[in-house]
Amino acid sequence: MKLRRSERMVVISNYLINHPYELTSLNTFAEKYESAKSSISEDIAIIKKAFEESSIGQIETVTGASGGVVFTPSISEEESLAIAEDLRVKIAESNRILPGGYIYSSDLLSTPHILKDVGRIIANAFKNENIDAVMTVATKGVPLANAVANVLNVPFVIVRRDLKITEGSTVSVNYVSGSSDRIEKMFLSKRSLPAGSRVLIVDDFLKNGGTINGMISLLSEFDSSLAGVAVFAENQKGARSVANYKSLLAVTDIDVKEGKVKVALGNMFYNDEQVK
Amino acid sequence: MKLRRSERMVVISNYLINHPYELTSLNTFAEKYESAKSSISEDIAIIKKAFEESSIGQIETVTGASGGVVFTPSISEEESLAIAEDLRVKIAESNRILPGGYIYSSDLLSTPHILKDVGRIIANAFKNENIDAVMTVATKGVPLANAVANVLNVPFVIVRRDLKITEGSTVSVNYVSGSSDRIEKMFLSKRSLPAGSRVLIVDDFLKNGGTINGMISLLSEFDSSLAGVAVFAENQKGARSVANYKSLLAVTDIDVKEGKVKVALGNMFYNDEQVK
Repeated sequence: MKLRRSERMVVISNYLINHPYELTSLNTFAEKYESAKSSISEDIAIIKKAFEESSIGQIETVTGASGGVVFTPSISEEESLAIAEDLRVKIAESNRILPGGYIYSSDLLSTPHILKDVGRIIANAFKNENIDAVMTVATKGVPLANAVANVLNVPFVIVRRDLKITEGSTVSVNYVSGSSDRIEKMFLSKRSLPAGSRVLIVDDFLKNGGTINGMISLLSEFDSSLAGVAVFAENQKGARSVANYKSLLAVTDIDVKEGKVKVALGNMFYNDEQVK
Repeated sequence: MKLRRSERMVVISNYLINHPYELTSLNTFAEKYESAKSSISEDIAIIKKAFEESSIGQIETVTGASGGVVFTPSISEEESLAIAEDLRVKIAESNRILPGGYIYSSDLLSTPHILKDVGRIIANAFKNENIDAVMTVATKGVPLANAVANVLNVPFVIVRRDLKITEGSTVSVNYVSGSSDRIEKMFLSKRSLPAGSRVLIVDDFLKNGGTINGMISLLSEFDSSLAGVAVFAENQKGARSVANYKSLLAVTDIDVKEGKVKVALGNMFYNDEQVK
């Protein structure tokens, strides 16, 4: 397909946006759009400048025979903060309090534009960590893990609290369930995670850390390693039991009687020194 | 931020790609990029041509005071067929057969680029249906529903087979569980679906239709209506019990002893006349 330069830039941008962290050779574009490699190179230079000036992401050029370009999505601190602040206000709405001091958040974590934004923020915090897979636990963590995995362009794996026939052989570990303080089991399909993976664990809420510590112990059963833990919101009272995590929001107080929730920005937005 | 035309086209393309089905006024772009509305209008014309020539999608211009542009993603028949054929071959791999004649598919439905492609194909089949929400059942349908909802830019709602304290008040219906032929219950959080919604039901596998018919009966409890049913793969032996559905793939035979799965393209790829 022969296109004019301006049109070519639009379709190459679209391609890169939809193939983050993937190496694409300039020849691929040159053949597809019947243009000289040097023209494609110039197109990429303009796209790179536009992407960087608007904090859409970086474009890196890898030279050599097997070279090409790689797009790494990013997000500006300003935009991250604005998104987090908007979500902070939403989570603090009093009508979200459920009996038992839980917070209803399913509406937020099932809205595509919110998920995409949260995915971009979390992925950006781990973009230099060479993540091979994102892990979460069914069901509420799934959309969030999916959103982060989309940006990092890696598969996600879903740990289950029940045995499903459609998962084939599974490995299980015990964990302390926070809500009941009981020992329960979690399961992961044997074929879902290759040995030697560097894994980012993602979940919606961090309460007492039982589920996340369970997932960490699963990693060693799969000869894989932990690259990091990221949560949408932490409950600061109980979060200390997980060694190292990044949170977008922190619920600091829930007053069920008064119907009030206090929410702060999470530790992702502090300087490293300030994080305990 | 002042940008050159070529850079402006890159960032406007990026914006439209990430905000499908949303009306954006030209003034928004004009202010953001400090350009005359007429220049933005010319940019959009070029982007529109590039998007349409490469089957990325359509850009519609809505005139008048509250007007602007709307991007509707699409996918060419050629690309849809190539994606479906690739997945057909993958699903037919013999090592996917699990005891009981189930097929392991979690790896495919947790890989971002596959999910995105399947989401684009399903969303494209329902793009004129004015969908308000995508519904699925936990857990395996969630990533697929998420992918379709991303393209349609609508929320998705997750029906559960168990009661979760974090969902608040729920409505439940009975359904016939296919795997056990027993009557079971499914639950949907009361606040997850506004009355009057037009809902697209999405699931990974259609076997006997019990789960999908259960979700259809939930819709009337929420004063909502069914816009359509889409599944990743159907098992043709049992699929007749669901009135009207579109499938990407159709498993026509599983020979557990021989380790052979026969898979055809789903009814999405037939002409309307040919669909029974």
